[in-house]
Amino acid sequence: MDAQPLPHLTAAGQVHMVDVGAKPDTVRTATAEGWVQARPDVIARVRDGAAAKGDVLAVARVAGIQGAKRTADIIPLAHPLALTGTTVAITLEADRIRVETTVTTRGPTGVEMEALTGTVAACLTLYDMLKAHDRGMVLGPIQLLSKTGGRTGAWRREIEDPHD
Amino acid sequence: MDAQPLPHLTAAGQVHMVDVGAKPDTVRTATAEGWVQARPDVIARVRDGAAAKGDVLAVARVAGIQGAKRTADIIPLAHPLALTGTTVAITLEADRIRVETTVTTRGPTGVEMEALTGTVAACLTLYDMLKAHDRGMVLGPIQLLSKTGGRTGAWRREIEDPHD
Amino acid sequence: MDAQPLPHLTAAGQVHMVDVGAKPDTVRTATAEGWVQARPDVIARVRDGAAAKGDVLAVARVAGIQGAKRTADIIPLAHPLALTGTTVAITLEADRIRVETTVTTRGPTGVEMEALTGTVAACLTLYDMLKAHDRGMVLGPIQLLSKTGGRTGAWRREIEDPHD
Amino acid sequence: MDAQPLPHLTAAGQVHMVDVGAKPDTVRTATAEGWVQARPDVIARVRDGAAAKGDVLAVARVAGIQGAKRTADIIPLAHPLALTGTTVAITLEADRIRVETTVTTRGPTGVEMEALTGTVAACLTLYDMLKAHDRGMVLGPIQLLSKTGGRTGAWRREIEDPHD
Amino acid sequence: MDAQPLPHLTAAGQVHMVDVGAKPDTVRTATAEGWVQARPDVIARVRDGAAAKGDVLAVARVAGIQGAKRTADIIPLAHPLALTGTTVAITLEADRIRVETTVTTRGPTGVEMEALTGTVAACLTLYDMLKAHDRGMVLGPIQLLSKTGGRTGAWRREIEDPHD
Amino acid sequence: MDAQPLPHLTAAGQVHMVDVGAKPDTVRTATAEGWVQARPDVIARVRDGAAAKGDVLAVARVAGIQGAKRTADIIPLAHPLALTGTTVAITLEADRIRVETTVTTRGPTGVEMEALTGTVAACLTLYDMLKAHDRGMVLGPIQLLSKTGGRTGAWRREIEDPHD
Repeated sequence: MDAQPLPHLTAAGQVHMVDVGAKPDTVRTATAEGWVQARPDVIARVRDGAAAKGDVLAVARVAGIQGAKRTADIIPLAHPLALTGTTVAITLEADRIRVETTVTTRGPTGVEMEALTGTVAACLTLYDMLKAHDRGMVLGPIQLLSKTGGRTGAWRREIEDPHD
Repeated sequence: MDAQPLPHLTAAGQVHMVDVGAKPDTVRTATAEGWVQARPDVIARVRDGAAAKGDVLAVARVAGIQGAKRTADIIPLAHPLALTGTTVAITLEADRIRVETTVTTRGPTGVEMEALTGTVAACLTLYDMLKAHDRGMVLGPIQLLSKTGGRTGAWRREIEDPHD
Repeated sequence: MDAQPLPHLTAAGQVHMVDVGAKPDTVRTATAEGWVQARPDVIARVRDGAAAKGDVLAVARVAGIQGAKRTADIIPLAHPLALTGTTVAITLEADRIRVETTVTTRGPTGVEMEALTGTVAACLTLYDMLKAHDRGMVLGPIQLLSKTGGRTGAWRREIEDPHD
Repeated sequence: MDAQPLPHLTAAGQVHMVDVGAKPDTVRTATAEGWVQARPDVIARVRDGAAAKGDVLAVARVAGIQGAKRTADIIPLAHPLALTGTTVAITLEADRIRVETTVTTRGPTGVEMEALTGTVAACLTLYDMLKAHDRGMVLGPIQLLSKTGGRTGAWRREIEDPHD
Repeated sequence: MDAQPLPHLTAAGQVHMVDVGAKPDTVRTATAEGWVQARPDVIARVRDGAAAKGDVLAVARVAGIQGAKRTADIIPLAHPLALTGTTVAITLEADRIRVETTVTTRGPTGVEMEALTGTVAACLTLYDMLKAHDRGMVLGPIQLLSKTGGRTGAWRREIEDPHD
Repeated sequence: MDAQPLPHLTAAGQVHMVDVGAKPDTVRTATAEGWVQARPDVIARVRDGAAAKGDVLAVARVAGIQGAKRTADIIPLAHPLALTGTTVAITLEADRIRVETTVTTRGPTGVEMEALTGTVAACLTLYDMLKAHDRGMVLGPIQLLSKTGGRTGAWRREIEDPHD
């Protein structure tokens, strides 16, 4: 293992917010996904009520968008970034709900944390609305799918079914 | 399946913040856990640097405590609650990090969402500090372990190893 | 006119957050309404798209609920209050949209400002989603309809059609 | 009526934060006005106390400036923008108070919502400070007066007295 | 020196938000003071402009009140508390400005941090408004003057002139 | 004394957020320092517990970084700025603790307030963690040490020992 330190640590081993002032502003995107694992009868409650479903999913989408905007508040060492766009897509499956969040910005650092934070906020909000029926729901896996832009360029997760 | 609606929906199928004004204030606790799955060499980076490890784990604990306090900001339909205590414990394993958050309050509604939100904030913060070494880390499972207090009383998850 | 001062001013004429520590906690409610005046073709866009309508109104409801929770952040002299419930109802009329927000709490001071702030946040959010079609939309009247609880007890606005 | 969708909706009719990443940063301004309708004796209380008046109006101006900065927190689909300036002017008339807010930025999207949110925050704060004397005060009309910059260029409201 | 640990640390030496759930709600107050040391000609600028002075001091008072409300956001291990009152008094002296903040609550823990945070927010705001004339201004001493309520009861600082 | 007004005041003597829209974005830095004066036995408690010390100092550093990011929320007339970096260094002396915060940005206005706000947040957090042992601790002096960038260029405080 090489000795390369964690970038969030100074030479003295203390956390700081890394200086990105010398990095150019570039277009950056990131996409993350998250899952809420739930019993089929809980998912069915959402699916069967057309009006209710609309509201439940819209609230989770809004929570995801607001969560992405609040990333620098929630993650102590994250840089504040002026997001230029955020989309949260939610899909109902038989026994789980999928959340996918894509965030874009023009700035000196990437939006991976924003995509993950938005995803997590949407998942937590789904749990909150459904928990009266099943406190045992499980969140995860929550993971980065891809990112573009910046010095390190594009990155893409090797796709595999998280339930295999 | 019974016809009991989601409590976060009005009779008209619209979301609202449920009225808990008639519920008495009682002592309530909730404990949630979350995992960050990472390569052993990434975990080793944290473990091997004693000073760094202290800072990395302390930052994640603080993020968890602050996240728990900010739950009503992040979860649209959550009630604001004056938390009376929050503890975030973090354990390093060979290829994953475990976060356990316990929250207490005296109020008319439970702190399950606060325990989950604190856990998720700590997990996201760990990911943020380690992501330069491995963007492929996965968050989850994130789940409620137990809760006490309120009309529904105590609840405890059937324990099973999330990796089996 | 009597000489009774504004309660938000000290004897020296300086603003402060009035001390309500000696007031007992009682159940309090407040309801406010607000209107967004818009061209019929703009309202029709919302009404005609069933899926879209659901999302548009749900987003405005969430904004109203979140806005009510954030009142003490937005109104400098408002007391922080742990809201016990918030409902935002939105109705489409031919050339205007009506927002009605009801807030409840148990505390030493009333929730009039919370009901008004939630209403205003929902109206602003509707404007935001529709402004690409008509920047000329007008917000208002926005007003308290009723409140209960506290030393001054119940208050109710004399009903009159704001468009007469 | 053409079929042009609301820009805040995806092709699937779901809300998102519109991607403005391809728009250039340009100087943008927006001015909004709002009114608080009050009984003459309530307005007189503010006007007659010179020291008090200063504080009351200064608090409302600060609330307007802070409200403008917090727009992306209050309006779910609004983009975070680094405002470069905000001025809130308040005028006392016989039976109403006028608030005018001008906001400027350099960015990829306009500041109409910031001007409106600042105006509304100032109006709510005036209501809060005066409500002990008259809960019946009415907020509105609240409306955009003009905006400059961006692809759609300048826009100006046809002037008319809102009380005629 | 006895071995009594810092209460914000668990037995394992890790920070947490101390559990105050077993403490009764009692009335609590705290008063703190802070100073901004400035050149006489800078202070004179504030004093000489009557209208300006009103606004400058009102803005600082509002910042102090808002800062006190935001204490649990700024101090990681502070408990969220529903403040029942806050007063910020500001006095101009020849070469310094004095800020005194008194905060009250009914709760399970004290408001010392709220009084100090409000004081500091007002001092920073004064510095911000005056810094164009003198960046060399110095903040401090900032200190608790007294507190009442709670298990430890009343505490009062031995008075001494901070400039002696 | 010349008649140059405070820049935060309009010609009418009212506070506003100064328009910096015409200023170019340049790299800017600012460094501030602050002190917590405490009894030697209180400082020794932090120093003697190695694990505890790590956590105590890390929490204060995080508070400083988060505080710097939240400056525009705490200081009413401060412009929101996207910070590009923040470092908080903390040093234990015999009877006092020193906090030094350096903030960087690329923007149209300076980061003096961010450096001071971060410093103050770290000092308050240290006081909070130590106050059970000594409520009499004193914060200050808190002062700007240097700044670079912008129209006025570099500024540096004449160094002198604040305890002389």
